[in-house]
Formats: sequence, C-alpha cells, structure tokens
Amino acid sequence: MGKNLLVAQSGGPTAAINATLAGILEQALREEAIETIYGARYGIQGALASNFVELSARKNLKEELDDLAKTPAAALGSCRYKMKDPNVDPSEFEALVRICQSHNIGYFIYIGGNDSMDTVWKFSEYIKENHIPDLVVVGAPKTIDNDLFGIDHCPGFGSAAKYIATSIAELERELVVYDTPYVIVVEMMGRNAGWLTAAASLVEGVNSSTPYLIYLEEHPFDLDVFLNDLRKTMAHGSSVIVAISEGIRDASGKMICDYGNRDQQKDAFGHTIATGAGKVLEEAIRSKIGCKVRSIELNLLQRCAGHILSATDIQESRTLGQNAVRMAVKGQNGYMSSLRRLATPEYQIEYMASPISAIANREKKVPAEWITAEGNNVTEAMREYLRPLVQGEDHCRFVNGIPHYIVLL
Amino acid sequence: MGKNLLVAQSGGPTAAINATLAGILEQALREEAIETIYGARYGIQGALASNFVELSARKNLKEELDDLAKTPAAALGSCRYKMKDPNVDPSEFEALVRICQSHNIGYFIYIGGNDSMDTVWKFSEYIKENHIPDLVVVGAPKTIDNDLFGIDHCPGFGSAAKYIATSIAELERELVVYDTPYVIVVEMMGRNAGWLTAAASLVEGVNSSTPYLIYLEEHPFDLDVFLNDLRKTMAHGSSVIVAISEGIRDASGKMICDYGNRDQQKDAFGHTIATGAGKVLEEAIRSKIGCKVRSIELNLLQRCAGHILSATDIQESRTLGQNAVRMAVKGQNGYMSSLRRLATPEYQIEYMASPISAIANREKKVPAEWITAEGNNVTEAMREYLRPLVQGEDHCRFVNGIPHYIVLL
Repeated sequence: MGKNLLVAQSGGPTAAINATLAGILEQALREEAIETIYGARYGIQGALASNFVELSARKNLKEELDDLAKTPAAALGSCRYKMKDPNVDPSEFEALVRICQSHNIGYFIYIGGNDSMDTVWKFSEYIKENHIPDLVVVGAPKTIDNDLFGIDHCPGFGSAAKYIATSIAELERELVVYDTPYVIVVEMMGRNAGWLTAAASLVEGVNSSTPYLIYLEEHPFDLDVFLNDLRKTMAHGSSVIVAISEGIRDASGKMICDYGNRDQQKDAFGHTIATGAGKVLEEAIRSKIGCKVRSIELNLLQRCAGHILSATDIQESRTLGQNAVRMAVKGQNGYMSSLRRLATPEYQIEYMASPISAIANREKKVPAEWITAEGNNVTEAMREYLRPLVQGEDHCRFVNGIPHYIVLL
Repeated sequence: MGKNLLVAQSGGPTAAINATLAGILEQALREEAIETIYGARYGIQGALASNFVELSARKNLKEELDDLAKTPAAALGSCRYKMKDPNVDPSEFEALVRICQSHNIGYFIYIGGNDSMDTVWKFSEYIKENHIPDLVVVGAPKTIDNDLFGIDHCPGFGSAAKYIATSIAELERELVVYDTPYVIVVEMMGRNAGWLTAAASLVEGVNSSTPYLIYLEEHPFDLDVFLNDLRKTMAHGSSVIVAISEGIRDASGKMICDYGNRDQQKDAFGHTIATGAGKVLEEAIRSKIGCKVRSIELNLLQRCAGHILSATDIQESRTLGQNAVRMAVKGQNGYMSSLRRLATPEYQIEYMASPISAIANREKKVPAEWITAEGNNVTEAMREYLRPLVQGEDHCRFVNGIPHYIVLL
C-alpha cells in the first residue's frame, strides 16, 4: 500500500506558486506510490495544527488544474513562521512527525522561499538524525525576489518581472504625452535584492528613446548623486523613467524610505514595512528640480497579476512541481526541485535536484558586475539574463469579463 | 478636389483614445472627400502652433492601425488647455481658422473629455457665427472618468474598469492568503465621479465570499461611520476589500485625503507629504482597529493598461472614431460621435451624433439610487450597467516579451 502526500505553501504570494502546486497535484495523481493528497491550510502552521484539506477528494480536481496554475497568491493559504531549531527544542518537529505518521504521510513537499527552505532543511535533518522511517521532505522553490541560491532563477520571478516591464512600458506612454519634462518614479518590491527593479531595463529603448535611470538596492544610493544623474539626463528636455528598489539605502545603510519622517511601521511579522522610497524621491525632485513628477508603487499587484503571466515562468513552475513529486517518491529527502541554465546560445534549462543545505539561509544578490559603474543602470549581461524569463504571454481564464480563480481553502 | 483632415487628442490619457484615433485614420483613408490627414502634436496647443505630423504620409500606417488601437495614452500627445471665450477674445479661434485654411483643412476632429468638448463647442459656434466656409468641427469622446453627458458610457472607461476589476480580483487572492483578519484599501481615480470605483462591485462574490465596502465620492464620507461599517463587516473574522474614490469628501466638503495633512507629515526637506485618501484610511484602520492593513493606489496604471483591455471598449472606441469621420464629411459641425444603450434584455448599443451644446461643461455623476442607502456599496442596477462594458479580453501585441506600442510623435 502507498503513502499519502502532504503539500503546503509558505511565504509571500506569487503569481506562479499555484502553478507549482498544480504540477505537484497532477504528478501526485499519476504516482502509484501516492494514495491520498492532503494540503495543509496556511503553511507549516496549518500542518502543525493538522489543518488539512483532502485535495484528492476534491471533485473535478484534474479539470481545475489549468485554472489553478494561473491563480495568483497561495491557493492553500500561507504563513510566515520560522520553526524552532530542533537541537534546542525538538517539540515542533516531534509533533510534525506524529501528525505525518497518524495520517500515513510519507511525503511532504513545502513550496516557498528562503524561510521555507530553512524549514525543509531542519525537518529533513531531523528525519535523518532521528532515523524516522518512511518520511521524505522535499522543497519546491518560489519567490518573486529571485534571491534563492541553488537555482538559476526563482518561480514567480519571471511573471513579476513581466508585470513590471509591462507596467513600465505603459507608464512610458504616459510620460511622453505632454510636451513638458516629466519624471515618473516607479518603486519595485525586493527588500534585500534588486532583481525585480532590474526588469525595468528590458523596456528601455523598446518603444521610444526615453532614458531610464535604474537604482538597485545592491548599490549605495546617494540623493545628491541621484539628483545630478537626473539633471544630466534631463539636460535636453527629456522626460525620464526612474526605477528603484523599495530597499535602496545610502552608504551608511540607512534606508532612503526612512528619510521621510514616517514612523517605522512593522507588518504582522515584525518586518519593517519598506515602502515610501519613491515618495521621498518624488518630493526631492519636486523641491530640487521643480519639474512635473509622480511616484508609483507597484506594491502587491506585481506579485499577484494572474492576468499577465510569463508563459516561460508558469511552464517551468509547473514542471518544478511535478519534479518535486518525482524526487519525493525517489526518496530524495532534503533536496529542492531546481533548474539550471545551460551555456547554450539559445535559452535552455535543465531540471535537477539541489541539496537544501547549500540553499537555506542565504540570499542571492545581484552581482556587482551587472550594475553599471555609475550605479544608475544595469549592464547588458543583466538584460541577457532577464530576457528569456519574460518570454511568452499567459493569463488566467476570464468568465463574464472577470478573472476566474480557484480557491482551495 | 477634397479637403484635408486634422485630428488631435486632449486631456488625460486612456487605454482607448488611440483606438478612436485608429478608427478615425482608417475611415479617413477610405473617404474620397479627404486628402491629407494631419495630426496635431500635443492637442489644441499643437494645432495653434501648426505643430503637425502628416499621418497619411506615414509608411505602413494601415498595417499599424491594429497595434495603434491597443497602444495606451495619446499617441499624438495631449494637452490640458482651455481656449479663451471667443466672445471675449477671438484671437485664438481666428488663428485656428487661418491655420486650417492655409493647410486646406476642412475637417477637424478633437478627441477628448469635458474640456475638449468645450473647445469643440466654442470652435463650432465660432465657425457658425462667423460663417467660416468649408470647416467642420466634430468631437470624439474619451475619458476614464465616464462623466460625459450625451453618451451612455465613455470610451476608455470600460478598459479602466476592467483593469480595476482584474486588479481587485487579484488583491482579493492576496487578502485571504494568511489566516488573519486583513483589510486592503484600494484607491481609484475619479476626482468628481465614482464610476471607476464602482467597478470593484463586479468582483464581489465572484471568486469567494470576501466582503466589500465601496465608497463613491458622490456620497458624503464619515470616518467614524466607515470604521463602524468595517468593524461590523469584520465581526466574524472576515478580511475585507475597501474600494474608495480618490475624491471622497466629508459632509462639509473637505476631502478625506486632506485629513492626512492634519499631522503635518514632513519629508526630509520639510515639505508636507501629500497623502492620499487610501493612506488616510490605512492609518485610521491601523490606529483604531489595529488589524493588518495595506492601501494600494491604482494610480496612472488604471488608465494606460494596454495589456488588459475591454474588447467591448476597444471595438466601440474604434467605431466612434470611424463615425466621427463620417459625421465630419457629412458636415455635422458641432456634434460629438456618440452611442446610446438600447432597452433590450441583451446589451445592444446604437451609434449616433449628439449635439455638443448639451454635453460641454457638464459632469455626469453616479445617480444616488445606484448607491446603497448606507453609502457603502452600489446597487444591482449599477452592476447591470457596468457588466457589459468589461466584456471580452483584448490586449496589445507583445514582441520579445514586452508590449509593442506605436509612437506617432
């Protein structure tokens, strides 16, 4: 008799995390080794509370998978929860093992980013060290931030990058409508890595010769240098797109958003809400340069835009989910379903299993050599890295003019 | 020998104003009465400066029209310029007539909203009163605000409404991801009319039972009443979507966004940070209710989203442009190309010519009976009005993963 599979989602939503879930479900339905498929509601916290939904009992599950793959956010719900170190307090992992055993769960797949891969790592190590039989833990990656090690690029990133590039192409049309110098500042997510902001570079020069200034959070940001960059760029009456990471900091490490006199706000998980750098630049441009200026925060929309997905991203995300199931059935405890880019002239990838130990608790930053010396744009190497990831348009199904999304909770 | 045609665009950008331009161009190319087609750069200001582009001389114009129809903003550029009253100072209209005559222009089509229809009205009256021969001025409507009289709904509104509904459907997926009460406040454009905000109602109940609170600027907004609405709605642990017009005001007429300046929020340079109404509600919810909350301004993106257009809107906008040319050739000076909705069970419209005198300088508000008595949602009649306008998905062409847009300037 087979074992049951448990799947859960974690961390911030993306537009592709449900594509990975759809891949997991379709492969799990095909595997003879797998009996019941459970989903944990709200990530590992739901798993710890045995808060399960029996997905394989869902009517029409197979027929729903294509819509699920294009439903943004996390259809099973999510959490931000850091498991206790089992060497200090093993009670949570003991509880997880008990719950898995009582539900005959032999495979646990956790879809998430850095924090989730930390959970996968700890759990897989706990299983090895305590010789827990018949339990395999596998990670499936996702994060719009693209900051995971052990993978060429992260599921969800390509769709977010495509949304960003598309929105900026549209803002560029707004920018040139009036016969007057105008600056639009666009602020992208990415607290600790500038990958998303770099996506703006894919639009520069495509539809017009509008100049771009692009500031990633990997390079120290100086307000006076920025204003000089801008003055130079506007010298011939040009309007300008300014793309910035929400997390840009000055040389002392102070966040630019904190230049505003706002109280530091924390989200429900104690993270500082890092929004407002665009507003700070907007005000600086207005007072020091005096031209027309507007700042736009792409905000949550950039990670949940199921209506404009990268077809490449969705297809890869789904395959990574299928592979996670294959890895689980093969017993690859402590591995993450991954992909690498081949050194071919045309974009080609190879799927693989990456050991979690090399992934957890590390953040992949944009390499310094992909940022120009002036720190106000990215290099062609960055554009070459990004371009294949936004290829192809995919989108959710619309019913009666409105997106049709799948809810599993 | 025929006459030449001049076309210009005016006011705020929309995602459909170039569909109307495409319709004008394709019909003008077909009309034997029309020789050269000129576009004025940057609206009536460009016309006054003879700043023309000879569109009919453009290579591949015919082949570009489908892409042009899905290019957002105003491909000819735009302006916000109120012409002087010719009864007080006729110099501007005298100049316009001279410029038209020197370019053999017999037809002038102005695409725009309220202010542009005022220009069309004044110009057409000036032509009549001064017996200017062989010059016909026709209006073509556009505005995302949907506040024009003399037409059932405005070109550009349907696409903006579709973008709004789509974005809110996606934010709703974000809203329910975590197992914790959460409020997302979404702020829509529309300083003087709440039509765009009402589009949120098309999403309520479609993908889940998430409750919505919707506040249009036609109904006085009271912060305490709002917080009570919200408390009641959240009583059973629900997360809530709050949709508001940027222009919501209290009973005294004070804009809610101006409540933000109470605290004299200053930026690094001592300037007051202009806070939006959404931000004001976000802060109120955080301090008075204390739950997780985030505010999102859809900002410029809602009027320039060429990647997610209402097919109904684009098709109608294009036809309105074609009809404007037919009207011009027929000599219908002082009319606007328009449409009305038939009283049929299925959505059906009829195209027509509306006299500008009944349109200019008036604003069509949301009728009071389409807002619920509590002022925190819209009625089914509003939803029935809106639903046909967002039907069908159209989008720009993508090349190499990025929108391909047409630039005529």
